[in-house]
Amino acid sequence: MTRVAIIGAGPSGMAMLRAFEAARAAGAEVPELVCYEKQTDWGGQWNYSWRTGLDQYGEPVHSSMYRNLWSNGPKEGLEFADYTFDEHFGRPISSYPPREVLWDYIAGRVEKSDVRKYVRFETAVRWVRYNEETQDFIVVSQHLPTGADSVETFDYVVVASGHFSFPNFPEFAGIETFPGLVTHAHDFRGAEGLKDKDVLVIGSSYSAEDIGSQAYKMGAESVTASYRSAPMGYDWPDGFSERPCVQRFDGNTVHFADGSTKDVDAVIMCTGYLHKYPFLPDDLGLVSPNNVYPEGLYRGVVWDRNPRLFYVGAQDQWFTFNMFDAQAWYVRDLILGRIQMPERDERAASMAEWKQRFEAIGGAADEIRFQGEYVKDLIAQTDYPSFDVDGVVEIFLAWKQDKAGDIMGYRDYTYKSVMTGTHSVKHHTPWVEELDDSLERYLHATV
Amino acid sequence: MTRVAIIGAGPSGMAMLRAFEAARAAGAEVPELVCYEKQTDWGGQWNYSWRTGLDQYGEPVHSSMYRNLWSNGPKEGLEFADYTFDEHFGRPISSYPPREVLWDYIAGRVEKSDVRKYVRFETAVRWVRYNEETQDFIVVSQHLPTGADSVETFDYVVVASGHFSFPNFPEFAGIETFPGLVTHAHDFRGAEGLKDKDVLVIGSSYSAEDIGSQAYKMGAESVTASYRSAPMGYDWPDGFSERPCVQRFDGNTVHFADGSTKDVDAVIMCTGYLHKYPFLPDDLGLVSPNNVYPEGLYRGVVWDRNPRLFYVGAQDQWFTFNMFDAQAWYVRDLILGRIQMPERDERAASMAEWKQRFEAIGGAADEIRFQGEYVKDLIAQTDYPSFDVDGVVEIFLAWKQDKAGDIMGYRDYTYKSVMTGTHSVKHHTPWVEELDDSLERYLHATV
Repeated sequence: MTRVAIIGAGPSGMAMLRAFEAARAAGAEVPELVCYEKQTDWGGQWNYSWRTGLDQYGEPVHSSMYRNLWSNGPKEGLEFADYTFDEHFGRPISSYPPREVLWDYIAGRVEKSDVRKYVRFETAVRWVRYNEETQDFIVVSQHLPTGADSVETFDYVVVASGHFSFPNFPEFAGIETFPGLVTHAHDFRGAEGLKDKDVLVIGSSYSAEDIGSQAYKMGAESVTASYRSAPMGYDWPDGFSERPCVQRFDGNTVHFADGSTKDVDAVIMCTGYLHKYPFLPDDLGLVSPNNVYPEGLYRGVVWDRNPRLFYVGAQDQWFTFNMFDAQAWYVRDLILGRIQMPERDERAASMAEWKQRFEAIGGAADEIRFQGEYVKDLIAQTDYPSFDVDGVVEIFLAWKQDKAGDIMGYRDYTYKSVMTGTHSVKHHTPWVEELDDSLERYLHATV
Repeated sequence: MTRVAIIGAGPSGMAMLRAFEAARAAGAEVPELVCYEKQTDWGGQWNYSWRTGLDQYGEPVHSSMYRNLWSNGPKEGLEFADYTFDEHFGRPISSYPPREVLWDYIAGRVEKSDVRKYVRFETAVRWVRYNEETQDFIVVSQHLPTGADSVETFDYVVVASGHFSFPNFPEFAGIETFPGLVTHAHDFRGAEGLKDKDVLVIGSSYSAEDIGSQAYKMGAESVTASYRSAPMGYDWPDGFSERPCVQRFDGNTVHFADGSTKDVDAVIMCTGYLHKYPFLPDDLGLVSPNNVYPEGLYRGVVWDRNPRLFYVGAQDQWFTFNMFDAQAWYVRDLILGRIQMPERDERAASMAEWKQRFEAIGGAADEIRFQGEYVKDLIAQTDYPSFDVDGVVEIFLAWKQDKAGDIMGYRDYTYKSVMTGTHSVKHHTPWVEELDDSLERYLHATV
């Protein structure tokens, strides 16, 4: 029987499981699946942990999420086409739910799918090797509680381990003299401890924007964000400012490229993440910056150098959960033989064409449109429920504008689902005043 | 040619390199050596990094050392018999040097030995497999800056990767509600940020004792140490107290087993480390608590289940650098065939005998004596320079007493080297007042 290894049971791996399960439920014969997940539960990034650094088994902690994270994009942009928010919650909710609520949503879909049995929890993949002779993969894994290792053979491997777990953690001159907390966004768990502090966030992308906002929300004395190329440029509240590159640290004094200095108590590096697959040999491992079209992946999922290996979710993401679905359904159909794997030449031609489109991208709005086109291309080829992708693109564009105009208030805005037509409702409390992020309060509080 | 892989270039791996180099210098033919080191330099724990969690390559940070660490045992207990402190520094120094000074000492020896060429820096071992048919090991490694992997074959493998790098990080009820910093001693880098804070250290061994003392030294408002079985019982200064087990956290309020509570700003778990070898299959991986006689190791170094695999430095340590030497010389001579590897029965008899002695240990003083006997047993079998091991045992016993009587002042005490007869000199500044831990100041300041 055909055997498929899925590495990771986060949103991408869960999409893969759901894709096969949908085929099985419709009467297809599906391969034997083994999904390796090093955490104790599924959900990937959304499976929050208070832990930092290394976990209870000495493994790198996967999730980069913090206690107080709320979605920073409207949920209408990531909604599953085959499992809507209405179906899960039974009533309209707001457009930017906190992490527990989103976790509940993605877990709810797979809990109803009877796919948990395929997941080997607390099991880390140590090494993958392709055997040219037998044309299959050897996957070495280790059960973390017992240390027992296992060597198994698979016809296909799907890498779904994500790429927001291994920090890009640059060095700055003098950083070793800084006497306070230096942490990467990956290990940031909450800003309560930053009350009354002078905080430096290094970076100008989502982490800097949101962790800086969290620090402000929790009462930091000041928030300074340092950018490399351009400031975020939002209309920040008092006490929040942007400065150019950090040149060096001298104790707790930070020197910036414009010659200015600032004494700070804590440094949070919001400097992004690495594509890192410590279990893959170099001929199977994706090397890419975080972008919407990583090189070497035919249709964004097939590892061109060895088309028995797939990546799901390797792109930088505007569309998230529904893009993973589009990818998972497509990968499934390649594995099931419903779609013929194109020959190398055809793959090369396709990749060259998409690369050209990718290189023509002029900014974030273009990226969103590019990713929309990409999702449409995949969905057209499988039985994943079709949806108004262009409508979702419009939502993202509106979101960008709303955020640009109101960085501390944009999470109070609402949007309309393209899946159900349901218009979201305002959360009972403005985000900037809401200090309880629990699902309990979000769903059930009467304020 | 015989090939030996050494995993790790910390003090144990460096001892292994030095052992082979000493034989080579004396005219022996030595095997081909490859020492894999994931850090950019050697020194292991002593190769301090400001980084926490994951490093610049996304690998777990190895060193658990903090900026302000000073040796917590007298240097006369760890002195190399073949490279004394006098030889390195050219004059007497104090008995408890700070980390930079100790790193300088251990690096100095190997810098003079022309062994750096054997070390593949920034190279992580991913997986080791023993091939029964060919009776050799396959070692899969990865060069971190390029991602290039390499698969090589070795006749012997020496595991010298240490066992104070992977935190034992237990969960406590309600810990996820604690709003401040929760860190493990492994990620503690300095106590300056704990000034005026109420600090909780969980644990009652060396990390708790020393990190608690650091917090006190740097001006913490209060230090509370929580023990599981018994308090450390030192005559702590004002503001430092011991309490029984943490039962739960409720926000920043800690509830202890005696019913008392304390509000704290930071939690540092000094809860020890795991023996963890993520690159070893379960039939090669040591599983043990941290003790002076881990099970499964003949003479503390030979992996009994496969005597082509060795561990150096796997014991809990009183003797350190000179014990690694004793082990490394012994392992070297087994590999060189100067010492015949005993058959399984003989190994079993030896292990049973030592286990019996180990089980008769009644306390720390017994452990020190046990480890002294162990070191003597090894040294007797090789050409490692003999030294007065019993004299070192006496130094350790004196140290314990001195520390028990003066926890904040014991580092100002001095001892006499059994190697050179040199009596150490007092550091120019009492430890509790010395805030500059640099080698520069230690060696050259005129106060």
